[in-house]
Amino acid sequence: MTISLKSFDPPKRVLMGPGPSDVHPRVLSALARPTVGHLDPTFIGLMDEVKALLQLAFMTSNDLTLAVSGPGSAGMETCFVNLLEPGDTAIVAVNGVFGKRMKENVERSGAGCVLVEEEWGKPVDPDKVESAFKAHPEARLLAFVHAETSTGVESDAKSLCALARQYDALSIVDAVTSLGGIPVKVDDWRADAVYSGSQKCLSCMPGLSPVTFSPDAVERIRSRNRKVQSWFMDLSLVMGYWGAGAKRAYHHTAPINALYGLHESLLMLAEEGLEASWARHKRLHLALRAGLEAMGLSFLAAESCRLPQLNAVMVPEGIDEAKVRARMLERFGIELGAGLGPLAGKIWRIGLMGASCTANNVLLCLGALEAELTALQAPIRTGVAVPAAMAAL
Amino acid sequence: MTISLKSFDPPKRVLMGPGPSDVHPRVLSALARPTVGHLDPTFIGLMDEVKALLQLAFMTSNDLTLAVSGPGSAGMETCFVNLLEPGDTAIVAVNGVFGKRMKENVERSGAGCVLVEEEWGKPVDPDKVESAFKAHPEARLLAFVHAETSTGVESDAKSLCALARQYDALSIVDAVTSLGGIPVKVDDWRADAVYSGSQKCLSCMPGLSPVTFSPDAVERIRSRNRKVQSWFMDLSLVMGYWGAGAKRAYHHTAPINALYGLHESLLMLAEEGLEASWARHKRLHLALRAGLEAMGLSFLAAESCRLPQLNAVMVPEGIDEAKVRARMLERFGIELGAGLGPLAGKIWRIGLMGASCTANNVLLCLGALEAELTALQAPIRTGVAVPAAMAAL
Repeated sequence: MTISLKSFDPPKRVLMGPGPSDVHPRVLSALARPTVGHLDPTFIGLMDEVKALLQLAFMTSNDLTLAVSGPGSAGMETCFVNLLEPGDTAIVAVNGVFGKRMKENVERSGAGCVLVEEEWGKPVDPDKVESAFKAHPEARLLAFVHAETSTGVESDAKSLCALARQYDALSIVDAVTSLGGIPVKVDDWRADAVYSGSQKCLSCMPGLSPVTFSPDAVERIRSRNRKVQSWFMDLSLVMGYWGAGAKRAYHHTAPINALYGLHESLLMLAEEGLEASWARHKRLHLALRAGLEAMGLSFLAAESCRLPQLNAVMVPEGIDEAKVRARMLERFGIELGAGLGPLAGKIWRIGLMGASCTANNVLLCLGALEAELTALQAPIRTGVAVPAAMAAL
Repeated sequence: MTISLKSFDPPKRVLMGPGPSDVHPRVLSALARPTVGHLDPTFIGLMDEVKALLQLAFMTSNDLTLAVSGPGSAGMETCFVNLLEPGDTAIVAVNGVFGKRMKENVERSGAGCVLVEEEWGKPVDPDKVESAFKAHPEARLLAFVHAETSTGVESDAKSLCALARQYDALSIVDAVTSLGGIPVKVDDWRADAVYSGSQKCLSCMPGLSPVTFSPDAVERIRSRNRKVQSWFMDLSLVMGYWGAGAKRAYHHTAPINALYGLHESLLMLAEEGLEASWARHKRLHLALRAGLEAMGLSFLAAESCRLPQLNAVMVPEGIDEAKVRARMLERFGIELGAGLGPLAGKIWRIGLMGASCTANNVLLCLGALEAELTALQAPIRTGVAVPAAMAAL
């Protein structure tokens, strides 16, 4: 391969897929500030602020709240490898791609995995989870995805966390796509370990995974019989670096500039306010829905469990969905997501996350989608999507 | 804690510690470019270029060459968990902090660990390594640190990799501090797995770990009996994402903007040329040395194994080294590194890495250090350091 000796000049996209979402110019600009050392007193101060801002976003007073120095899947693995030991049993609810990934994490931690499966596109059923606890009283952990990015479905995190407590198990909650977009009430739910990602409703660039652990989770980590299998993800070591006070124990070199970006994005969330951010995601989702339904398109998920920030929309019969996405990207710079696994070819995933969740984007996306579907002679109603969305705004 | 609702405004530092080094404005500016999706065709092109530029930096044609989406310690762990299985035996050479961390990695992978220890400040002794192979013919792996960041010592990577081959073992080489600053000749050495960090002589912000694996290492990964214990670091999955061609399998969301930055920093290294970069590190190290020695200061490491980019300098008798570092930071914005472990309080670590390795920084550092040591009445010669460095430039 010939190396092209040129700086990379990325096109300006409109990111309306399953993440990353558009990164706000304030966050991009924070990223580019001068790098300081990871033990610099000013950086220690920044870490304290990131922690406080994450506590606010997670609605928790958990002391062990931090950003894992890796993407969401590193945050996920941090939860599993710290809370499980070989021989433990975990119940994992699977209703999409990310539940399946949890199962991989459980098994690679040497623990036994009891699956509670649900059709993709439906929420986790608490009754089935309860049956699993009854059949497996030895289970020490329940893991589930709050907002399934692969299907656009919300599960009832509060009920599921309560079930885990009822059966003396800890809970691990995947809040990658939910944090900032819909309520994630860690203390109210009494969730034990929750992980998220920087690149969804927080609208920071990808690469960091906010996590939070309850006192019960910390107690389980402290009382482990053997070391965590991962040195990099071992919270007993990471805690020393993110711990309170100016005396930090060096563990690894933090991703300094990435944390500048996360700090700025969390600040923007705090400035807007959590409730206002949830309301914005809801309002613009309803506008998008009005436009899509006016065209005659429908959703995969039932209204009762539908995520506002991740819209899984059924592809009309006979339409090559990949062609539509390719043309949307090429002609308008709009990125939509494809279906995964059993949903490949059957749905589009339209993200309305964080800085991508704007009225302008809703109208742009509807207009472009209508144009492309019309060009492919899809059986849709035309000329109605944008007015319907406008009426709902 | 009260949340201070302000953007973070980092001070402009001169980073002359053990890393991160100063990040060049070109790299900071690349970081701030608009985020695209991790499956965007333009981003796939960027990943191909990053791979080609890393092959150039590592002097290798290894196909499995990529940037791990985490800091150097995640790159280290990626090497160990993929190449080791429970029941294997690994020989680990320890002559500083990072060799000790390797031991942790071996043990947490379920493998047995044979240590070859050396005094901190000395290079790994190939004779001792050979004795270990003779005593442990079952060893399947040799791991060592090429450039020990905790002591400023270079070990003879070529001889050590050859020893590993002689005894039918694979080699893992820590090149975190060496890549870009001194020769790292992966193919010439026939090294099997080499990891580095973005924030040392590449002068990118921290958070990424370049890695490369020989065909023999890939063969060992392919012939594993059991899955890699880490899902996030499992190269059999990561390979599908970084693999050749446009068809990428989604594994995790890549840290898009961080890879913009790494691309730019590797481009700058390619523009300067590897040999020119090594020569610059050597020349400025010699100027720094001339100044330090003129003051009467000495080095921890013998000249034969001394790293140009990481200068471990003995603290004069009776001087509170932390006070000197604090004053250098406060008055001049210069960050120096402290000694670790048995060297705490005994050495400073002066980094001359990547964009921090300039003649201006050498003169500034010498001038400031002379001023602070004079203020503390250290027994040094004054007025000679800067002229001596100038003469050596």
